[in-house]
Amino acid sequence: MSLSSVTASIITIGDELLIGQTVDTNSAFIAQELNKIGVWVKRRVAVGDVYDDIWQALDEEGKQADIVIITGGLGPTADDITKPLLCTYFGGKLVVNEKVLEHVKYLFEVIFRRTGPMLERNLKQAEVPDNCIVLHNKRGTAPGMWFSPPTPQQGEAPLNPPQGGFRGAGPIFISLPGVPHEMKGLMIDEVIPRLLKEFIMPAIVHRTAFTAGQGESMLAELLKDFEPTLPAHIKLAYLPNYGMVKLRLTSQGDTKEEVEKELTPYFEKLQELVKEFLVTNEDVGLEVVIGNLLKAKGKTMGTAESCTGGYIAHLITSIPGSSAYYKGSVIGYAYEVKENVLGVKHETLETAGAVSAETVKQMVQGALTVLDVDYALAVSGIMGPDGGTAEKPVGTVWMAVGNKEKVDTLKLNLRFDRQRNISMTAGYALNFLRKFILADS
Amino acid sequence: MSLSSVTASIITIGDELLIGQTVDTNSAFIAQELNKIGVWVKRRVAVGDVYDDIWQALDEEGKQADIVIITGGLGPTADDITKPLLCTYFGGKLVVNEKVLEHVKYLFEVIFRRTGPMLERNLKQAEVPDNCIVLHNKRGTAPGMWFSPPTPQQGEAPLNPPQGGFRGAGPIFISLPGVPHEMKGLMIDEVIPRLLKEFIMPAIVHRTAFTAGQGESMLAELLKDFEPTLPAHIKLAYLPNYGMVKLRLTSQGDTKEEVEKELTPYFEKLQELVKEFLVTNEDVGLEVVIGNLLKAKGKTMGTAESCTGGYIAHLITSIPGSSAYYKGSVIGYAYEVKENVLGVKHETLETAGAVSAETVKQMVQGALTVLDVDYALAVSGIMGPDGGTAEKPVGTVWMAVGNKEKVDTLKLNLRFDRQRNISMTAGYALNFLRKFILADS
Repeated sequence: MSLSSVTASIITIGDELLIGQTVDTNSAFIAQELNKIGVWVKRRVAVGDVYDDIWQALDEEGKQADIVIITGGLGPTADDITKPLLCTYFGGKLVVNEKVLEHVKYLFEVIFRRTGPMLERNLKQAEVPDNCIVLHNKRGTAPGMWFSPPTPQQGEAPLNPPQGGFRGAGPIFISLPGVPHEMKGLMIDEVIPRLLKEFIMPAIVHRTAFTAGQGESMLAELLKDFEPTLPAHIKLAYLPNYGMVKLRLTSQGDTKEEVEKELTPYFEKLQELVKEFLVTNEDVGLEVVIGNLLKAKGKTMGTAESCTGGYIAHLITSIPGSSAYYKGSVIGYAYEVKENVLGVKHETLETAGAVSAETVKQMVQGALTVLDVDYALAVSGIMGPDGGTAEKPVGTVWMAVGNKEKVDTLKLNLRFDRQRNISMTAGYALNFLRKFILADS
Repeated sequence: MSLSSVTASIITIGDELLIGQTVDTNSAFIAQELNKIGVWVKRRVAVGDVYDDIWQALDEEGKQADIVIITGGLGPTADDITKPLLCTYFGGKLVVNEKVLEHVKYLFEVIFRRTGPMLERNLKQAEVPDNCIVLHNKRGTAPGMWFSPPTPQQGEAPLNPPQGGFRGAGPIFISLPGVPHEMKGLMIDEVIPRLLKEFIMPAIVHRTAFTAGQGESMLAELLKDFEPTLPAHIKLAYLPNYGMVKLRLTSQGDTKEEVEKELTPYFEKLQELVKEFLVTNEDVGLEVVIGNLLKAKGKTMGTAESCTGGYIAHLITSIPGSSAYYKGSVIGYAYEVKENVLGVKHETLETAGAVSAETVKQMVQGALTVLDVDYALAVSGIMGPDGGTAEKPVGTVWMAVGNKEKVDTLKLNLRFDRQRNISMTAGYALNFLRKFILADS
């Protein structure tokens, strides 16, 4: 389903994407921002630092999208071939842009505090094709470049340079640096405002119901009579992720208000049907849900992590303002830290073991006291690949959550690999904590 | 530069990739595995759950690659349209595969421990096109599918069904589920071994020098006389990431031994030229380098994190076997935890503040004692977006590293966003610790 009449393709450039050395997070960000303003990203393509492959991608994507956004390949080193290629592709020539030059000098002298003469390769970053609009990159030396199709005069054939790439009546091509925070700044400050001037966008609205504790197929069973009632332009998607499933409704129309008005009753019905498993009706993580709950109650929390090694604390503290309710964690990776800092009894560790209901209970009690918090969460388990036994195989996890009155425990039997076990444990633990806080009124 | 005569394209399917709800990590994994066996991934394409767009991607990628790997769209819900599409595309029909059916039943009854009758939608996962090789998915219900071009008989025209997609002498298409751990299992157990039988692969060798403390352009300046000496088939790439730059040499040839023999002197020269900034000559993270150093010395470490909120601990404990040298962390997000657990003086927090040389010094001393470790690392800073002052703006970070004899401190002036500040702080801190351990002999 094409969700908008304005379409985009994203081209990311760099061998590192094709040998798997780098995960492409830029595309997801660009897609999100375009989607917010009503642009439907139809395709994302990654190609290597290969002249012909980049050229071909420009040709192909330009034929099927209104907007082509290109990232990467603009750095100061010899493996970056994109800028001269774009210049040739669009039939321009490279000229020094005085404003960019001034900015590059400013960055080097004032911000990076470099001494000595500027390098030739840095000065070169101020060169841009003479037929593009330069997009100011506050955060770095490589500017963004915006290539608009020239409007053909009455009776004039569209511009078609010998290379055949650029079509006079064709799409807008936008080239951005690949460094994520530079790309992000340019998207927000320059690209989005300009696109909003250039196109009349439809409104696209997404509504996401976030569920935990039930698999994709059982949820689909709950929704089997609901799904056929959706109009063709409203789409339901299932997004499973580490023991949770997001159910997303998407629709489009002329104005946001109209679309929301039509979508709301369907979204309410959807929530009703899965209410037993519903965590929240926003597209946010559990750490945000928990933060909101704690802020509303004016309560604090802390964690005592063994097997997740700080990952739960990291999720919680990724949220700006989390210091209002999160006081800290004791990561007791070693037995002695569990004993000395959290006060887990030596005897418990000896008899029940570090991965046991008794240990996580005492970890919670220790964390409540040591960190002086209202709620504490503790996890201990065997993440693998080593450390499993017949009795407690890899994937065995005990968790506990509690306050001064009560401590609940839960056991997981996970499988598979270390990273997945860490992520799944964190997800289950945060949901376990969420339920405990909700039930504690 | 095409690095191999055997090429692949990766097609990922799912609207979530095009609205930016999900970051595509599958492609990076597939690319890595293909690259290891000598397949050059030429392109990666993401398309939505749109029939025509998937069809077009199969057509286009099939024309330019020997191997097309497709992930996603194979789940049990109605938004997954890939399996019937593939069936039509390759001119087969869907039939129940008894082995898959047995496996689906086994997973539901024994592994997922579901009671009650199987759902129709789950049984449907046992349906596969009758003209594919079924790849056994140990970890889930959706099997992989391998479509080989039928070998045309002598004098016979290549098979070309009416839809025109599949060419008789064409590439191999492999469809895998999009759930990461299922896809990974299938790649390792089924796809890679079969590809190795099907193709004669060249050897591709990468060598990565990992540097810290110097920018891309200054490194390029150090390498400006070296780069032109590289033969055309050896390529140098710069991969900047959060204050570190990886320098990667890539070459190819008939056998791994030959390629390595030719590449080694160039890689040694490269390391020599950047030796001042070299962290390691392997493509591993700082947490691995530190782990190896500590294991070699038989020493232990712990952390005391404020602003990074557990991220450093998470990086260290992501490494299997890290419990041999990592004992734990005290995450003191609140003042009182710094005071009560780590023993930072109340007066220091009052006068110098939580983000100060004095505080991180005392955090290190506290961690050394409380966690009973040989080395401790502490960080405290303002990650943003709020909390900055004129004197200590967002991005101000103090860190300390020490042992029982000595504590060193370092101040960072970062900028930009919270996530980037957390990642950069962790990177700088781990490198600061690495240098301290190295100097401590």
